[in-house]
Amino acid sequence: MTHPVTLFTAQWADLPLEDVAELAAGWGFDGLEIACKTTHLDVDRALEDEAYLRSRREILDRHGLSVWAISNHAQGQLVCDDPLDFRHESIAGPRTWGDGSVEGVRARAAEQMTKTARVARKLGVDTVTGFTGSKIWRYVAMYPPVPAAVIDDGYEDFARRWNPILDVFDGEGVRFALEVHPSEIAYDYWTTVRALEAIDRRPAFGLNWDPSHMMWQDIDPVTFILDFADRIYHVDCKDTRIRPRDGRAGRLGSHLAWGNPRRGWDFVSAGLGDVPFDDAFRALDSIGYTGPISIEWEDSGMDRRSGAPEALKHVRSLLWDRPQQAFDSVFTQKS
Amino acid sequence: MTHPVTLFTAQWADLPLEDVAELAAGWGFDGLEIACKTTHLDVDRALEDEAYLRSRREILDRHGLSVWAISNHAQGQLVCDDPLDFRHESIAGPRTWGDGSVEGVRARAAEQMTKTARVARKLGVDTVTGFTGSKIWRYVAMYPPVPAAVIDDGYEDFARRWNPILDVFDGEGVRFALEVHPSEIAYDYWTTVRALEAIDRRPAFGLNWDPSHMMWQDIDPVTFILDFADRIYHVDCKDTRIRPRDGRAGRLGSHLAWGNPRRGWDFVSAGLGDVPFDDAFRALDSIGYTGPISIEWEDSGMDRRSGAPEALKHVRSLLWDRPQQAFDSVFTQKS
Amino acid sequence: MTHPVTLFTAQWADLPLEDVAELAAGWGFDGLEIACKTTHLDVDRALEDEAYLRSRREILDRHGLSVWAISNHAQGQLVCDDPLDFRHESIAGPRTWGDGSVEGVRARAAEQMTKTARVARKLGVDTVTGFTGSKIWRYVAMYPPVPAAVIDDGYEDFARRWNPILDVFDGEGVRFALEVHPSEIAYDYWTTVRALEAIDRRPAFGLNWDPSHMMWQDIDPVTFILDFADRIYHVDCKDTRIRPRDGRAGRLGSHLAWGNPRRGWDFVSAGLGDVPFDDAFRALDSIGYTGPISIEWEDSGMDRRSGAPEALKHVRSLLWDRPQQAFDSVFTQKS
Amino acid sequence: MTHPVTLFTAQWADLPLEDVAELAAGWGFDGLEIACKTTHLDVDRALEDEAYLRSRREILDRHGLSVWAISNHAQGQLVCDDPLDFRHESIAGPRTWGDGSVEGVRARAAEQMTKTARVARKLGVDTVTGFTGSKIWRYVAMYPPVPAAVIDDGYEDFARRWNPILDVFDGEGVRFALEVHPSEIAYDYWTTVRALEAIDRRPAFGLNWDPSHMMWQDIDPVTFILDFADRIYHVDCKDTRIRPRDGRAGRLGSHLAWGNPRRGWDFVSAGLGDVPFDDAFRALDSIGYTGPISIEWEDSGMDRRSGAPEALKHVRSLLWDRPQQAFDSVFTQKS
Amino acid sequence: MTHPVTLFTAQWADLPLEDVAELAAGWGFDGLEIACKTTHLDVDRALEDEAYLRSRREILDRHGLSVWAISNHAQGQLVCDDPLDFRHESIAGPRTWGDGSVEGVRARAAEQMTKTARVARKLGVDTVTGFTGSKIWRYVAMYPPVPAAVIDDGYEDFARRWNPILDVFDGEGVRFALEVHPSEIAYDYWTTVRALEAIDRRPAFGLNWDPSHMMWQDIDPVTFILDFADRIYHVDCKDTRIRPRDGRAGRLGSHLAWGNPRRGWDFVSAGLGDVPFDDAFRALDSIGYTGPISIEWEDSGMDRRSGAPEALKHVRSLLWDRPQQAFDSVFTQKS
Amino acid sequence: MTHPVTLFTAQWADLPLEDVAELAAGWGFDGLEIACKTTHLDVDRALEDEAYLRSRREILDRHGLSVWAISNHAQGQLVCDDPLDFRHESIAGPRTWGDGSVEGVRARAAEQMTKTARVARKLGVDTVTGFTGSKIWRYVAMYPPVPAAVIDDGYEDFARRWNPILDVFDGEGVRFALEVHPSEIAYDYWTTVRALEAIDRRPAFGLNWDPSHMMWQDIDPVTFILDFADRIYHVDCKDTRIRPRDGRAGRLGSHLAWGNPRRGWDFVSAGLGDVPFDDAFRALDSIGYTGPISIEWEDSGMDRRSGAPEALKHVRSLLWDRPQQAFDSVFTQKS
Repeated sequence: MTHPVTLFTAQWADLPLEDVAELAAGWGFDGLEIACKTTHLDVDRALEDEAYLRSRREILDRHGLSVWAISNHAQGQLVCDDPLDFRHESIAGPRTWGDGSVEGVRARAAEQMTKTARVARKLGVDTVTGFTGSKIWRYVAMYPPVPAAVIDDGYEDFARRWNPILDVFDGEGVRFALEVHPSEIAYDYWTTVRALEAIDRRPAFGLNWDPSHMMWQDIDPVTFILDFADRIYHVDCKDTRIRPRDGRAGRLGSHLAWGNPRRGWDFVSAGLGDVPFDDAFRALDSIGYTGPISIEWEDSGMDRRSGAPEALKHVRSLLWDRPQQAFDSVFTQKS
Repeated sequence: MTHPVTLFTAQWADLPLEDVAELAAGWGFDGLEIACKTTHLDVDRALEDEAYLRSRREILDRHGLSVWAISNHAQGQLVCDDPLDFRHESIAGPRTWGDGSVEGVRARAAEQMTKTARVARKLGVDTVTGFTGSKIWRYVAMYPPVPAAVIDDGYEDFARRWNPILDVFDGEGVRFALEVHPSEIAYDYWTTVRALEAIDRRPAFGLNWDPSHMMWQDIDPVTFILDFADRIYHVDCKDTRIRPRDGRAGRLGSHLAWGNPRRGWDFVSAGLGDVPFDDAFRALDSIGYTGPISIEWEDSGMDRRSGAPEALKHVRSLLWDRPQQAFDSVFTQKS
Repeated sequence: MTHPVTLFTAQWADLPLEDVAELAAGWGFDGLEIACKTTHLDVDRALEDEAYLRSRREILDRHGLSVWAISNHAQGQLVCDDPLDFRHESIAGPRTWGDGSVEGVRARAAEQMTKTARVARKLGVDTVTGFTGSKIWRYVAMYPPVPAAVIDDGYEDFARRWNPILDVFDGEGVRFALEVHPSEIAYDYWTTVRALEAIDRRPAFGLNWDPSHMMWQDIDPVTFILDFADRIYHVDCKDTRIRPRDGRAGRLGSHLAWGNPRRGWDFVSAGLGDVPFDDAFRALDSIGYTGPISIEWEDSGMDRRSGAPEALKHVRSLLWDRPQQAFDSVFTQKS
Repeated sequence: MTHPVTLFTAQWADLPLEDVAELAAGWGFDGLEIACKTTHLDVDRALEDEAYLRSRREILDRHGLSVWAISNHAQGQLVCDDPLDFRHESIAGPRTWGDGSVEGVRARAAEQMTKTARVARKLGVDTVTGFTGSKIWRYVAMYPPVPAAVIDDGYEDFARRWNPILDVFDGEGVRFALEVHPSEIAYDYWTTVRALEAIDRRPAFGLNWDPSHMMWQDIDPVTFILDFADRIYHVDCKDTRIRPRDGRAGRLGSHLAWGNPRRGWDFVSAGLGDVPFDDAFRALDSIGYTGPISIEWEDSGMDRRSGAPEALKHVRSLLWDRPQQAFDSVFTQKS
Repeated sequence: MTHPVTLFTAQWADLPLEDVAELAAGWGFDGLEIACKTTHLDVDRALEDEAYLRSRREILDRHGLSVWAISNHAQGQLVCDDPLDFRHESIAGPRTWGDGSVEGVRARAAEQMTKTARVARKLGVDTVTGFTGSKIWRYVAMYPPVPAAVIDDGYEDFARRWNPILDVFDGEGVRFALEVHPSEIAYDYWTTVRALEAIDRRPAFGLNWDPSHMMWQDIDPVTFILDFADRIYHVDCKDTRIRPRDGRAGRLGSHLAWGNPRRGWDFVSAGLGDVPFDDAFRALDSIGYTGPISIEWEDSGMDRRSGAPEALKHVRSLLWDRPQQAFDSVFTQKS
Repeated sequence: MTHPVTLFTAQWADLPLEDVAELAAGWGFDGLEIACKTTHLDVDRALEDEAYLRSRREILDRHGLSVWAISNHAQGQLVCDDPLDFRHESIAGPRTWGDGSVEGVRARAAEQMTKTARVARKLGVDTVTGFTGSKIWRYVAMYPPVPAAVIDDGYEDFARRWNPILDVFDGEGVRFALEVHPSEIAYDYWTTVRALEAIDRRPAFGLNWDPSHMMWQDIDPVTFILDFADRIYHVDCKDTRIRPRDGRAGRLGSHLAWGNPRRGWDFVSAGLGDVPFDDAFRALDSIGYTGPISIEWEDSGMDRRSGAPEALKHVRSLLWDRPQQAFDSVFTQKS
């Protein structure tokens, strides 16, 4: 087995961590990518209450699970997003949202991210996965016209708001891994290039490779691994199924709900979609990635309790032992 | 398990129903889609002989099998087909063929269809699957030229001959489900639209979704489910494998026998071909279809006794439990 | 010649209408689709000042040009868009923007749209093309999660704000033709279906077929014509070139400027891109569309004065005389 | 110019030959492929009436036109077709149809074909293009089941009926060139192989390469030229446009009229479709074909008087002068 | 089970034959395709030393393995290759290489091939698989220019050098099966045609179907089986995975090592790549091939001890029992 | 007009430069990319004989032609190629070939390249286009196995042999532009990366963008321009037509002659193939390339005297005037 396989807990946030751990261990996962949800890992409490933090570890230990990364997608999203609205209030939690004043929310969210780095350190975890939000995502349609300076400012805003957070990460020896995703400062290949440049490619900031949103944007997830080889800090497996072209299904989802078969694409349990996971795992090995493969399980057409172990089985079936020698090295005839 | 899986018995008509039932039950099927072949279900006898009808049920009960639909493809084919020839005689059976006079055959075949509805009722079955034949299929090449009035008349002929049959279906509370197929009044998407219009979209007439002939005609079987959502009355699974283009293999089959690898496409056991069954089953759920998935097993390259259980296994592997809630419903942070 | 060809004036708004008319006539256009820009057609002034309105006509007459539609994309955009920001101020003009209060701007923009209908009537024009804006476009990424009720409300907001405007259009006997476009209530096929339903498919509201944004979303512009046949009120020709997949160029444009060759697609002069204009013009004839073909010229790689006549030449080359009879009607042998 | 370009007159059969000749010459054609329609070339009369035959030549001479082939598609169709119905009556003409008795019609049609060979000889023409009909075309759907022996018999029926005709062709030194086409004994690649074998590849029987029906069947027209190199006796240019897949448009045409944009494919004027004519003309040269390129003009969306000269212009633009030497023969450095 | 499955031993030449046999038998293989490597089968010794030859058989017998073919790729390669260099020395072995004089090496390699036929005969094996080398492969780029006469001479050189070897094969009643491959006289479809013609299609020379190098050259491996039906003497299964186009990965491998994910294609364990093995096995049955399916296992991303049994499992899963009757033969209604 | 268009003279080397100049000027070319062939530009003589050099200029001046680059493909090829054989003797010319000793030929060819730089300088030309040859091209098939060290040595050999030549280029202020091509040290994307690294990306060495060999290798010529933006020193236009897949035509050309339609691809006159020249020219502008577009005319199916002016017309038709401003810059409403 070349990589441990973990379960990302965000999609199970309605269950206590104990239950998620029990399920995951029962299915054979090696560990959890714990989401900083209050039901799973409350960062405020973890910094204030040693017993609480210890309880998190004990839950893992009891089930023989490890942790290589923790996630804080929701708080990260609030750092740069513009505007902030009811959607953000829904994911922020009352402590961060507070009175809802825009800069207040952003400051509290940024603080949550630094706390997340500190909790990671305390848990012996080197990587925090998550989102950044974006000041300019909403201009993606480019009408009404958007001057180039506005786009430039969006990347600078990202750098202004995240560099201080990343300084704390550096202090803790923890790295942040952005999941490239619509709504974020980087949502495809060239925005990733630009985002990395905006923070001078500082090592504290890397990527959480999740191919699901690359597929429908025509971004090759294997190319992504190879070209950003030194920035692949974590791997999330979510699969996407592209429907064959019918001239009606659109790339943007048509404001249709997840699982509506009229959508042009949808998330499916890893192995049921179009992500070339075998190629991707080979590419990850080629760049020297040795971390976990984490299953972020989202599929509107399956019960998650059937799906998660199915996805685990699929992923493990592709994690071959790697060879000791080149196959053609034995062709030499010596006698 | 979201749908029962049945075996269509037409491809096993050389065996007595008892044997088919034993095989199917042994492989794990939930029921049979019984073909009205004399070896399986003789409609004349079933209406005249209560004991015979009871014996059919007992065979099923003995093997723990249910029945949700019965089929009468052959008799339906004779209702509209033009001309009738040796091929029709072969499938008609001597009772329907009689002296072979064209309108006589058609009348007897129509009567067989009404009898099939009555037998279905007696068996507690709501759906009869089958064919319609077509007066205009043979003009498909459009040379020598075919006036529009001839095409119009073809659809009207279908309505004239089938409306009285459907009246009997309505009387019995049974629905007819046409398998869209070359040789029938509807063989693709737009002919299905036109056929439905020809009978004013009366509810007695719906569709038996079978994707196998859609594939090589470039009809998207998932689109078909969504656009004819209120007319999908039954589901037959037969798979089709399209050969990659080589400039020689044609879409029309080149008068080559099934299984000849020079054909541009061929039927294969469900799961070995190009039908997107996972997408299709999700679409069926989205339109509220709750009926059986019936395996119509045809593959010229496999023994049917190896193939049928293989196909069952494949189909069942895609019938996931459906979820209780949206995956993103748990993202809200409450505390 | 089956359709007149007009030039859309929005891309020439820096020039006085006189100059645009002279250029267009010189290149051989049959008319203009006049944008309600102050340099071309100031609707406030046109309603208050008969001489001004007359001057517009005289400019056209002097150059032998006709007008079949006028456009007011910018004001329409302001009616529903949310939030309104610097981009909207830039296109609103000071009269509509006023103090910038959100509902104030929306009300003034709505009034501008009703005025546009009245001006159209006075000019003898039956169609106003334009945008609607959208309350929900910005939720397109669906993260943070967006409840279904929010999407529903977006379509209802559109209906609430546009129905009163359309009442005025009805009063004037003028129709509104929405250009389906990102940022609008309808940006693809299924959002168009939903938008039409939201206003009960009232005849005052139809579509300005512009294929350019359909191409990169995988929407078939010919299917669009056929399926929305009774709602195609106007035709704008803008072409789009899709770059072959390279795994890096994304469908969303990567916040890269128009004309940047790293984009996955870009606008090009009609005829240089992937829009199947020949198929589209045939489809337009088949649905009985008899209006103008209007060239909306946008191409970041060509000078507009070279491009507009080039595009005109291309479009005209596809506007064949239609046949008098079916080609196979002469195959009958009479003697 | 490497090949003369002719106009096939069948699509102009409502006009007297004089008018067609005048039009064709005016557009710049080099000759006519004259259809044996009574308005153009009445074979009975031509064999009985020397003056009539002379008049045909004079019409051509007057307009500077040549003739390399004459066509008799309609009569050929009647030789094998089964059943014969109203469609055949429409194309047969009263003399061939007579009392309509099946074998009577077939015999008279066969005689017309032998007469066509004799007329060709008298006109100094070596090639007759046309159809054969088919006893088995109507079994193309393969349901109701069709035994292999029936297919075998179809090819044998073709041989039985055509060998005597071809004997007359041999006697006259004229060759027959079948247009591979649905409804004929050969409609794709493998049926062409089988048809040629059925008559032992006798030289009197060859092919009229017309790519239009190959396109939608996925037959590569260039492969066809290369693989049947010794049987390409004539070339007809008709173009076909395949619509992009939309999951609804079918390969079989859906009983929709020519020109209906919901069809999956349609005929278009040469150069507007998907036939790779440049590749094809190069392939024709490579096999040593030196005959005419004949334009069979069919396009439901264009007036034929606009279309024919447009197609001529397109075809001529691809008939380059061929080179004298290999381009890399000059790379040798001699001093 | 329709075909035995064997393991090709060349990729295991660093292990003694005993070990390979034990492994293969343990995994369930039916036999070995033994490579004439000194560790597995030393042809010189086998002809001189009966006990040695017997020991080879005993190893197989002990493990219940059969042998249908032996291979001598390396010696065959030396027969025609030009120039011979360090690469050839590496595979030649010291006995064949000797003093390294070009014609000396070629003569000794040719003798090894005749010895291989003799050993095959003694082992009761009818088929020797292998390579031929090529005098003209190195001119594949066609710059500097290559006269046609040079190409002609390459095929003649092949015939001159191989005909005497094939005479010995004929004498022994053994057939040679060339693996079509870059570096060989036949590396694709048309070079195979030409190579067969060069030796007048003598039956002693046939093909070892290995699809792996066909895939990246766009050669359809199923077409290959059908078109060379009478020359398919053996089957080797090696799979190839083509990476999706990204505009940078090239077809020629870019001098990148096997397993480098920047390559445009790579070898993978059978079942993980793009070879249509199901179609291919059906085609092999259709041409009457009854020999073994041999797994030539090469995958730079897997340990061979995990991969070989995995590939065996995949291949066996496609070797269905073939049917006894046509599926539609039971549709006839007899009573 | 954004770029001058030149004619590359290598394909006209059988004609005196005077004749080529007259032809090119007559067709409307702006200049010549002169091949250092003795008939066009003899570098030895040009360095020794001022009058000769002056005569070259006068020929150009007389016809109003300019020169931006000269080419020496043949001599460059000899610098690294291994082995050298009859093909090289054919292109070397007797002075370079001399006694044919390998290192002698290489040294003389290297000297010719330095002389070419000196002649360029004297002609006021900044760029020499050409080939490099390659020590490792012949190992492209990777069988017999090729150790990584051999590949490494191939790039080092290139650096060793070319760095001294490039030193002379630097001294003259002239740049060398390699045409990426099979047989050269760089034949695709990744070999170009590696070749540039081998010489430390020294500015004296850049690329002559010629898309023709990229097409069949699946290299995107536009990506190539963008990724090697600082190394595009010259542009050669040769087009390539890829035949649709037929399962028989291979990517490697099958040792078939240019123009054989069974090849999988072939060179065609610019505009008749698959190179996306419009996209490419836009990309060239985006990287700031301001040099000539040179037509390297090779098409086995056209006479060069028809083809060259045809290609010129095509290329010019895509060299649009570039715009003065962004099209959406005029959307702002100021009053």
